[in-house]
Amino acid sequence: MQTDVVILAAGQGSRMKSALPKVMHSLAGKPMLQHVIDRAATLPDSDIHVVIGHGADQVKQQLHNQPVTLALQAEQLGTGHAVAQALPQCRNESIVLILYGDVPLIQSQTLTQLIHIAARDHLALLTVELDDPTGYGRIVRNAAKDVVAIVEHKDASDAQRAINEVNTGIMALKHSYLQAWLPKLSAENAQGEYYLTDIIAMAAAEGVRIGAIQPACEQEVQGVNNRLQLAELERWYQRQQAEALMTNGITLMDPARIDVRGKLSASQDVLIDVNCVFEGEVSLGEGVIIGPNCLIRNSRIAAGCRIEANSIIDGAQVGEAAVIGPFARLRPGTELAEGSKIGNFVETKKSRIGKGSKVNHLSYIGDATIGEEANIGAGTITCNYDGVNKSETHIGDRAFIGSNTALVAPVKVGADATIAAGSVITKDTPAGQLSVGRARQQTLSHWKRPSKRDA
Amino acid sequence: MQTDVVILAAGQGSRMKSALPKVMHSLAGKPMLQHVIDRAATLPDSDIHVVIGHGADQVKQQLHNQPVTLALQAEQLGTGHAVAQALPQCRNESIVLILYGDVPLIQSQTLTQLIHIAARDHLALLTVELDDPTGYGRIVRNAAKDVVAIVEHKDASDAQRAINEVNTGIMALKHSYLQAWLPKLSAENAQGEYYLTDIIAMAAAEGVRIGAIQPACEQEVQGVNNRLQLAELERWYQRQQAEALMTNGITLMDPARIDVRGKLSASQDVLIDVNCVFEGEVSLGEGVIIGPNCLIRNSRIAAGCRIEANSIIDGAQVGEAAVIGPFARLRPGTELAEGSKIGNFVETKKSRIGKGSKVNHLSYIGDATIGEEANIGAGTITCNYDGVNKSETHIGDRAFIGSNTALVAPVKVGADATIAAGSVITKDTPAGQLSVGRARQQTLSHWKRPSKRDA
Amino acid sequence: MQTDVVILAAGQGSRMKSALPKVMHSLAGKPMLQHVIDRAATLPDSDIHVVIGHGADQVKQQLHNQPVTLALQAEQLGTGHAVAQALPQCRNESIVLILYGDVPLIQSQTLTQLIHIAARDHLALLTVELDDPTGYGRIVRNAAKDVVAIVEHKDASDAQRAINEVNTGIMALKHSYLQAWLPKLSAENAQGEYYLTDIIAMAAAEGVRIGAIQPACEQEVQGVNNRLQLAELERWYQRQQAEALMTNGITLMDPARIDVRGKLSASQDVLIDVNCVFEGEVSLGEGVIIGPNCLIRNSRIAAGCRIEANSIIDGAQVGEAAVIGPFARLRPGTELAEGSKIGNFVETKKSRIGKGSKVNHLSYIGDATIGEEANIGAGTITCNYDGVNKSETHIGDRAFIGSNTALVAPVKVGADATIAAGSVITKDTPAGQLSVGRARQQTLSHWKRPSKRDA
Repeated sequence: MQTDVVILAAGQGSRMKSALPKVMHSLAGKPMLQHVIDRAATLPDSDIHVVIGHGADQVKQQLHNQPVTLALQAEQLGTGHAVAQALPQCRNESIVLILYGDVPLIQSQTLTQLIHIAARDHLALLTVELDDPTGYGRIVRNAAKDVVAIVEHKDASDAQRAINEVNTGIMALKHSYLQAWLPKLSAENAQGEYYLTDIIAMAAAEGVRIGAIQPACEQEVQGVNNRLQLAELERWYQRQQAEALMTNGITLMDPARIDVRGKLSASQDVLIDVNCVFEGEVSLGEGVIIGPNCLIRNSRIAAGCRIEANSIIDGAQVGEAAVIGPFARLRPGTELAEGSKIGNFVETKKSRIGKGSKVNHLSYIGDATIGEEANIGAGTITCNYDGVNKSETHIGDRAFIGSNTALVAPVKVGADATIAAGSVITKDTPAGQLSVGRARQQTLSHWKRPSKRDA
Repeated sequence: MQTDVVILAAGQGSRMKSALPKVMHSLAGKPMLQHVIDRAATLPDSDIHVVIGHGADQVKQQLHNQPVTLALQAEQLGTGHAVAQALPQCRNESIVLILYGDVPLIQSQTLTQLIHIAARDHLALLTVELDDPTGYGRIVRNAAKDVVAIVEHKDASDAQRAINEVNTGIMALKHSYLQAWLPKLSAENAQGEYYLTDIIAMAAAEGVRIGAIQPACEQEVQGVNNRLQLAELERWYQRQQAEALMTNGITLMDPARIDVRGKLSASQDVLIDVNCVFEGEVSLGEGVIIGPNCLIRNSRIAAGCRIEANSIIDGAQVGEAAVIGPFARLRPGTELAEGSKIGNFVETKKSRIGKGSKVNHLSYIGDATIGEEANIGAGTITCNYDGVNKSETHIGDRAFIGSNTALVAPVKVGADATIAAGSVITKDTPAGQLSVGRARQQTLSHWKRPSKRDA
Repeated sequence: MQTDVVILAAGQGSRMKSALPKVMHSLAGKPMLQHVIDRAATLPDSDIHVVIGHGADQVKQQLHNQPVTLALQAEQLGTGHAVAQALPQCRNESIVLILYGDVPLIQSQTLTQLIHIAARDHLALLTVELDDPTGYGRIVRNAAKDVVAIVEHKDASDAQRAINEVNTGIMALKHSYLQAWLPKLSAENAQGEYYLTDIIAMAAAEGVRIGAIQPACEQEVQGVNNRLQLAELERWYQRQQAEALMTNGITLMDPARIDVRGKLSASQDVLIDVNCVFEGEVSLGEGVIIGPNCLIRNSRIAAGCRIEANSIIDGAQVGEAAVIGPFARLRPGTELAEGSKIGNFVETKKSRIGKGSKVNHLSYIGDATIGEEANIGAGTITCNYDGVNKSETHIGDRAFIGSNTALVAPVKVGADATIAAGSVITKDTPAGQLSVGRARQQTLSHWKRPSKRDA
């Protein structure tokens, strides 16, 4: 079915109290508007039109390079007016589906259903039953259960106010209907706005059947008007993701304390301890164990790895059975080979650590390549920056770097080489030999300890 | 209206199982008693009297230097007896308002209402409707809705037990009434105590009207008798603060996972990730982003700063657009200028870091002043302590400190100076030049690696 | 009462989606099956039999060295069949108590009650009232409230479906009854399995009285079929532990954010901040304060200690009033004496730190013994590993180790000795004297800073 999706994203959202347009606020790490676009993009043969207005420049920037067309609603004159701005871009033979940039969790299946109803020449309407429908437009049905009208709360009789089914504003209908009805909308109401909802009465008046369906759950159609609602929806969404993970064979120590902001692919028997955050694309191989308070972003962790508590991993590729942390920080460009180990208070960046190699304590490894089975002592620092340029350090297989060593890049440590503790290494060191760059120890026997100064 | 506030704070609170008097237990980082005093202090022309008893010395110490007078209740003979200990200190023309040190969340508006009612020559009583009123004294009203009696649970008829409105014990009335009624209280009851509540019957008997009002929410009058109740009230209070922050334009990733123990002033578009704790006075400028698991205490963070995950900031002033963490620890006396950067595993204390300067990795900066655009290499340590005295380190603008350098204070590094990696700097270094304090590198070609000792 | 406990643990638990047999999944740090065994072991004169099947090898390994006998159910032919595999091992005169490896939280008191009922020649049955009993077998009682039958959901009349009391499957009865009834079970049902439940009808038919009791709470009999249920039970269990701690005089900043996976013994006035995890056996002395985000495992922390935020303590003994963290990591074998201090970014392992000694910043202390009142400067590293052997470092009382020092073990620093900052110490240093191992500082006046390379 050929569909033109019109997403209304022009509102200011003043209750967000934000310099950011409302639809740009993120849910699960992605702007609300993007959630809606991503859903719309799953529909076959669909063109997506975003109606922008408030904060148009910021929204435009977000939509840069995306397969959507923009329509500017210069003045905010109501939802009907907003749709009218996009209508000229829509295809004449299309079903037009109207969505909202601040209703982020609408599901593809619901949209597909609406389109199918609209294709049958009906006005397809999405409604929802609320425990407390106060303030919403009630769906009035006749004895045959057909929708015959929407009555606004203020205009509703007591009997109508008892109706729990309300309008969500999401609808689909043939382009030709919109083209006929939108020009007939009137702004002669309290707000002086053109309400899209008014076309429902037109449909009823013209005998166009109104086919109403309901979403799988209320949250699909929940709009966000302030940050409390955003937080509430965020938590609901996180809970859904947590349940999906558990259903797929992941153990979560506390489903209320995990945040997935992007796409987390986890294999069977992964265990995630409390308070972990995942951002971007993260994959976790079978049996991976993640300790509490870890933050993992855009990384691939192979099977059998153990990430200990309070570690941060960003942009890293980690081979099987590696052990990381606690208190480790892997920065982008880190590649850890199978069975390697990064310990506490160690930072790595743009470096490759070979199979079975260990950097266990208090080190900075940047722009380095470390071979296999090497041992990097505590307090080792690759001096990769001279104030203007970055340079590389190469450490051979089975090298042993003594503690508190500074490796001044560019520099190469040969395979099987040993560097004495406390050395500063500025020149390449030969394979298999001991290199040392430190002073001889001596004792000053007549030295006296400093005494306390007067305060 | 002239008010004398009497706060009862003499009870032991044995169900707290604590060496600390109950009223000294903290809610949101402040003793419960202090919450009550702070509320009372908002009333115009008020004298505050605290009745102490159990743990009197500890409570006295907490109240040291505060504008309250103390009254000692040597024996705990009931609430009526407790009030009687403070009455001689109260002013004759005052309204006396009776509060409780273990009912911490009473609000000023409620108190003001009570005082106004008492000023109209009534006994002003605070009552609350509970879903389950079992055990509480029921408020009996006549057909005209006037309160006519309080009936204790054990004495109540079935009809009375069905009443949900109960007494909170909080009341206000003219000093003269108290002076007349308190001496008439009797301890001839099961507990052998003088109950303040009994004056309500006296008021009714004498035809003094009883004006009952209710708090804005139940938690205002919730008393704390054990640590479960304290935790419950703490979470409720934290939730209120979280909602207030969100309403004011702050994004909270999880409103159930933020703790504010003091005063957090956050500007618009601040984002606070999960599990952060704020203590004391903290201000966050516009657009500040705080990563997960941060602890921030008594600090000012200017607009546009980014605090990365797992950072601890205590007593610091941070200029605009600074970037801190992850795993940074700023200790008291740290001042970061605009655009500066403190990275992972870095500790700062009593130091000033100039505009645009960077301390990115594994360093300790204490008692130091760093100029602008300086680069402090990984593993740099300011040796500020000789075992008895602390000394200062000064680093000039644009200085470059090579990695693994020890700066033995007192010492000055000149502007544009460079320090070679791995140096120990004990003397001032000239501006613009390279200083080095390290040994020459050499290789021992016949050296053999150690072999495994027998176990 | 002589009891043989038969624990059914042969099921696959396919909804767990796990390579681990279901009963091996942990709740509060201990396999579910182990919870059941530990409860059964509290019964006097009890033999415990575990029926294994799926993943038998893994379960066997877990049960290695435990006082249980195993019975293999090679094919999973139902609960009746499972019990039959263990029956030959049971003593003829015993009460047989049937438990389930995936119903982990059954309590001893409930078991004792069942055994007492069975001893009176009844079939003792554990039932539970559920808000929603759909799918469970209903307990049908006669006018005298005696249980007369269990009716499976699918076979129940509307009236029977309205019964909330359901069968848990947990029961106790004399060995002789089981021996008589088990062989009579039939597998002629939809699943083709031998259902233990069918013996209830046999008991009723033979006039054996069925004595049904209920557990103290629903969670006691909650079975785990998938990871959602496991997480739900875990959180419930954690909440119970949190409440028990608070009742005993421990302050929890958030009872929903503490995880105790093992045995936590905490004295009065301990305060535990948000998001802490305790594993194994941990004891906390009076007044210990634990900051947020700490992980403590198998450690003893004496009275008055303060553990600051984001610290990890594993296998350590900590003396009174020690201060640890933030960002400290104590590894197994760490012993801290009274009043000692381990600061940020410090790792200790298999080391003893004497009374009042301080390791405040960025250090690695491994295989070391430090005397009293010693000061270990920032960036100190004990080089305990030469690539093949571990060696020890000894530091005397009141020694002062300058910052950025490498102590190459085996090595001894004498009492009152001072080590100059930036030294590499490879030989023992005499008491009371200054030892230094570093190069002299010099300045290269004609040196030019590197210039930016072409990209």
